[in-house]
Amino acid sequence: MARRQGTAELVERVRSGDRRAVARLISLVENGTREELREVAEALNPLSGRATVLGLTGSPGVGKSTLANALVAQYRNAGRTVGVLAVDPSSPFSGGALLGDRVRMQHHASDQGVYIRSMATRGHLGGLARATPQAVRVLDAAGCEVVLVETVGVGQAEVEVAGLADTTVVVVAPGFGDAVQAAKAGILEVADVFVVNKADREGAGDVVRDLKGMLRMGPKLAWEPPIVKTSTVNGEGIDELWEAISGHRVHLEDTGQLEGKRRRRVLEEVESMVALRLRARTAGLLDQGAEAELADDLAARRIDPYRVAGILLEKVGPSTGESDG
Amino acid sequence: MARRQGTAELVERVRSGDRRAVARLISLVENGTREELREVAEALNPLSGRATVLGLTGSPGVGKSTLANALVAQYRNAGRTVGVLAVDPSSPFSGGALLGDRVRMQHHASDQGVYIRSMATRGHLGGLARATPQAVRVLDAAGCEVVLVETVGVGQAEVEVAGLADTTVVVVAPGFGDAVQAAKAGILEVADVFVVNKADREGAGDVVRDLKGMLRMGPKLAWEPPIVKTSTVNGEGIDELWEAISGHRVHLEDTGQLEGKRRRRVLEEVESMVALRLRARTAGLLDQGAEAELADDLAARRIDPYRVAGILLEKVGPSTGESDG
Repeated sequence: MARRQGTAELVERVRSGDRRAVARLISLVENGTREELREVAEALNPLSGRATVLGLTGSPGVGKSTLANALVAQYRNAGRTVGVLAVDPSSPFSGGALLGDRVRMQHHASDQGVYIRSMATRGHLGGLARATPQAVRVLDAAGCEVVLVETVGVGQAEVEVAGLADTTVVVVAPGFGDAVQAAKAGILEVADVFVVNKADREGAGDVVRDLKGMLRMGPKLAWEPPIVKTSTVNGEGIDELWEAISGHRVHLEDTGQLEGKRRRRVLEEVESMVALRLRARTAGLLDQGAEAELADDLAARRIDPYRVAGILLEKVGPSTGESDG
Repeated sequence: MARRQGTAELVERVRSGDRRAVARLISLVENGTREELREVAEALNPLSGRATVLGLTGSPGVGKSTLANALVAQYRNAGRTVGVLAVDPSSPFSGGALLGDRVRMQHHASDQGVYIRSMATRGHLGGLARATPQAVRVLDAAGCEVVLVETVGVGQAEVEVAGLADTTVVVVAPGFGDAVQAAKAGILEVADVFVVNKADREGAGDVVRDLKGMLRMGPKLAWEPPIVKTSTVNGEGIDELWEAISGHRVHLEDTGQLEGKRRRRVLEEVESMVALRLRARTAGLLDQGAEAELADDLAARRIDPYRVAGILLEKVGPSTGESDG
């Protein structure tokens, strides 16, 4: 009972914009006990759903953080409060705990209208996908009008996290992290806006041409993702990027797609959560009792992994019919 | 019954080294039906466990594929047959289906002692973790004495795939993909050997120093991962890398750790498979019947995602006690 009050009080402090409470609550959604997670989810639920969520994704080195910084400045100029969640291990936003690390981009760190937070990316598969939507809700409840989620666009979990946003900006650059790599990583499909960053470098025109070619090869879309060339060296294209993002927002609202997109997002979040909890049930199953013998048979190749998986599956959650064929 | 014979026959052809059968069987482990996967697992099980599995992981752009190519040459010179699995979306091995893509490194493509194959990386979260170990077994069964698995070391699924190997080589390079980024991505922990590639470039010495510093900060290890500087421009360090990899192999055998490592690996594989099957059961659960109403309540924020996950969890696999506490 005492703990329940504690969580409710913490959420209340978040609601009033207390920055230390925001930090504590995000830590809680990353590392809380099941009971705490349940309480936080219940308390946050009615307080969220107002913030615009912007995703920024792309390979390490394409300049996402510098762009994020430029976008934060745009939002601040427009009088909006902004939260930034860095779930990119290579982001300079991701903090200075490691040897040799420098936090380069936090011009905004002393601005009370900006909250910057990195998410731990080292946990178990799926942990990131569970904690990130809740961290977005924390910033939303704290009054951030815009939440910018920066993810590294390489890896399956990361592509999934990119699906969190109302508008997803995919950043590529000449050289590494180019259009072909983005296509292979599966991040082209999630793009609402393309940025070809480092436009001052050789090869930027080729990247734009490749992207246009790939878009032509794909299906005809109701919203054709604009391609914006930017350079954070000379400030080129930042205004155009801002317009492209705003244009997509208007498109979502005009066509009524925003609601549908958010609905799909929360359903996927629930599915991820169920999968994660089920996975937790399987951990260590082979360490004890009758199953330890199975593990020996498996190691000696007397039984194959697929069959063992079937046996464990029946134990964890017996099939209820067709769905498990 | 006819299909069962088909699978057994295909595995038999793989065993005799038929390259087209290898290609077909890998496609089957990527995309097969549940029944096919079951049959393939059973047939492959007694035929595998002989190959040495080498993992090569690191950020896009650090030069993994060029190193892979150099290692393949070393193994071929030593008279060993080699299979290469590229699960890195940015790898040139990953094929030429996309606009503007060039396959640069396939010197070995016409060598009958080398089999190169890319894995589809675009599927569902976890699909890669399921298919890759089976693809390793296919190459093992086909007589590859060494299987080299190239993964991009960014992203949680990819770190998990890196755990497949007997020996994991983590590649970093000055500039992007350096030691700090590797640490944040959680790939330092999986390293048995470190490579600082592009040693001809400025800053390579700093990367070596950073790595040494991080290793000193960590716990004392029975096997201290050697740090090898390489340059594929001038061939520097390739022999040293070869020796480091061989040295780790000897260490695994001398200390009896190879067996333990492989045992843990197959147990983790089974857990992943169980989790994936359970996840498949949850997909679409909210689309139908009484649950569709839950989805409406969820979208309207009348109920929170955590609570809905709890309801679905009970439906998919009722808790059997403590383990889900």
